[in-house]
Amino acid sequence: MNRSPLAPAAFPDLPAIAGVSLRTARAGYKAWERADLTLAILDDGTSVAGVTTKSRCPSPEVEWCRRALVLGRARALVVNAGNANAFTGNRGRAAVEAIAARVAGALACQPSDVFVASTGVIGVPLPIDKAEAGLDAALAAPVVAWEGAANAIATTDTFAKGASATAIVDGRTVTISGIVKGSGMIAPDMATMLGFIFTDAAVEPGFLQKALEDANETTFSCITVDGDTSTSDTVLAFATGHAGNRPLGREDDAGADAFRAALADVCRQLAHLVVRDGEGASKFIRIDVDGAESDRSAHRIAMSIANSPLVKTAIAGEDANWGRVVMAVGKAGEPAERDKLSIAFGGIEVARDGLVVEGYDEAPVAAHLMGDEIEISVDLKLGDGRATVWTCDLTHGYIAINADYRS
Amino acid sequence: MNRSPLAPAAFPDLPAIAGVSLRTARAGYKAWERADLTLAILDDGTSVAGVTTKSRCPSPEVEWCRRALVLGRARALVVNAGNANAFTGNRGRAAVEAIAARVAGALACQPSDVFVASTGVIGVPLPIDKAEAGLDAALAAPVVAWEGAANAIATTDTFAKGASATAIVDGRTVTISGIVKGSGMIAPDMATMLGFIFTDAAVEPGFLQKALEDANETTFSCITVDGDTSTSDTVLAFATGHAGNRPLGREDDAGADAFRAALADVCRQLAHLVVRDGEGASKFIRIDVDGAESDRSAHRIAMSIANSPLVKTAIAGEDANWGRVVMAVGKAGEPAERDKLSIAFGGIEVARDGLVVEGYDEAPVAAHLMGDEIEISVDLKLGDGRATVWTCDLTHGYIAINADYRS
Repeated sequence: MNRSPLAPAAFPDLPAIAGVSLRTARAGYKAWERADLTLAILDDGTSVAGVTTKSRCPSPEVEWCRRALVLGRARALVVNAGNANAFTGNRGRAAVEAIAARVAGALACQPSDVFVASTGVIGVPLPIDKAEAGLDAALAAPVVAWEGAANAIATTDTFAKGASATAIVDGRTVTISGIVKGSGMIAPDMATMLGFIFTDAAVEPGFLQKALEDANETTFSCITVDGDTSTSDTVLAFATGHAGNRPLGREDDAGADAFRAALADVCRQLAHLVVRDGEGASKFIRIDVDGAESDRSAHRIAMSIANSPLVKTAIAGEDANWGRVVMAVGKAGEPAERDKLSIAFGGIEVARDGLVVEGYDEAPVAAHLMGDEIEISVDLKLGDGRATVWTCDLTHGYIAINADYRS
Repeated sequence: MNRSPLAPAAFPDLPAIAGVSLRTARAGYKAWERADLTLAILDDGTSVAGVTTKSRCPSPEVEWCRRALVLGRARALVVNAGNANAFTGNRGRAAVEAIAARVAGALACQPSDVFVASTGVIGVPLPIDKAEAGLDAALAAPVVAWEGAANAIATTDTFAKGASATAIVDGRTVTISGIVKGSGMIAPDMATMLGFIFTDAAVEPGFLQKALEDANETTFSCITVDGDTSTSDTVLAFATGHAGNRPLGREDDAGADAFRAALADVCRQLAHLVVRDGEGASKFIRIDVDGAESDRSAHRIAMSIANSPLVKTAIAGEDANWGRVVMAVGKAGEPAERDKLSIAFGGIEVARDGLVVEGYDEAPVAAHLMGDEIEISVDLKLGDGRATVWTCDLTHGYIAINADYRS
């Protein structure tokens, strides 16, 4: 697969996190010559938080993580790429349990301290023998840097994705580094894809959970590639505590706001990278909706625009077809008044109060659409609700990738 | 545009309806050499019923029809193709009023007896001068048959669409003939596209309205091409009364059931024709969902499958990727239990009780997927709710058509 034209020039210089060691191995889940099993070993005392798919048909990995998250502590993370192990019944559950047991044995911890995520084709049980051999190889392998892990968790991704941020907490600089994979089956209203975030900050699990949920709501839950929601979506955040700050536990702790902002910043960077690797994407699209009756209503309208195949193909064709934006606003089912609606592309108003602006000049709009960073703004002029979502265009590349992915 | 590979061999032999005369003209809404204005003149005493888009940004034509439908009588229908006149403010409203006034003057009826529908690009006010000249030409033009009208109302359609049925009502044979246009911006949960149905039966407006709404619910509202809902969707049914039956007014009138069944049959045929002309379609897909908690829940799950780009591209690629069906069930947000779920393609079960069937043989499934009539069945095993929807696959053709439609 060619690298997405929207990819950053290079993988960022991501700081290591004290208390986290990364290893990869080739379990051979698919017939490929690459590492496809990632093992992150976490020092004792690591807190964990997570958000998972709202799919009614979640993978056994998602169910495993949900149960383990209740305890709030983690010693290891295992990520399998090439097989999602979803919709595989008892055999899928057994594979997850076998992985957790093997790692727990090696690290002398509880199986519930081991988090597992898998991504790839749905419906094929994860082969336990390959997983176990891969784990043994990973346990014996040298430590790798973030880019190695980011590559090992990828499937249809065309580039490795990572991001980091720092914050001052209780007088200490804490660092947050994260990696993510995702390109298709990326959809709204939940934690999408697989994302793993690590920090050396000391953070109590409850605080970390709340901070992650809040960050998720304005980042991962605000992106969409195709409106299709994975069975395996999982974002986990691990805090090793090695920075030595007094553990963050309350909203008014010193540095709580800074930590939350840095975590949200990493989540936003990672979410944008997923959109930039959206299957077939040639344009990165930001959609702002203002003046809705509520933020929730604005979000739904923004997602209706972002998921409209007609809007997405118009952007692919560099066509300022704002009529399709009107259509997508209208179909969202949210309060909207046609004759108050205004629409802008790249900050240039094209329609105001329900009709095209007087003396509309398409030239500057067309110039904006020829770039690869597109902005669509809608003002409903009904209230104070607002939302921003990010998506990509819909091109022949998406069809080419998905009409023959499994074969 | 090439004729859809799913098109029927020829336009059907559609019976004329006494009391309905069809005329077309070239208003020149686009730079094309074809009739793009259709005028149906209806004899005095014609009842009318209609269902319109649920879009929050409807066209002025939709608003006009809604108001006129309250009166329940019709003398004419005007359909403009090439310009939807939606999102055009007062100028759009003025165009509709001018059309109704001109036809009312010519036929010596009320403007509210004139129904108007327009389809095409959104955001450009319908040019009143072209509409008026076109109307004058149509009023003076010879009568055309159904196929001429079906061609004149088309836009991105690749073939003319019509269907008919008969019923015995009160000892008389009544005939129902209808035409429809639609290919993209076709979506669930409402009357989609433009459809016009004519019958010589005598039917009171209230009964006709109820019969049309009921028929719509299991036909037009159960198809989707791209999940995008038009600003202009309108289906109107006109009953001239020339068959001479005692007017149908109540559910227990003689022939009421037969008429309702025949009307639903015409609606279903027309709805299927729209799917067969879905933009870029190469496969006609029927999706059955059984065992849901309710019919409504089944419908939502079926639509989630039908609108999933990953399911649609898998079918385009003739890939029995039932994992994507699981994904689409899971994301629907409706009650579902992964470990009870069964899935079949072409009647061949591929997954049962949450995992692939024992000894799964992909060969017969692959053979089914190579055809152009695909069946996907899902059994949730939770209750008695069931639904059927129809859609098409998602191919390069859809991208090609929509990345440069307006230009």
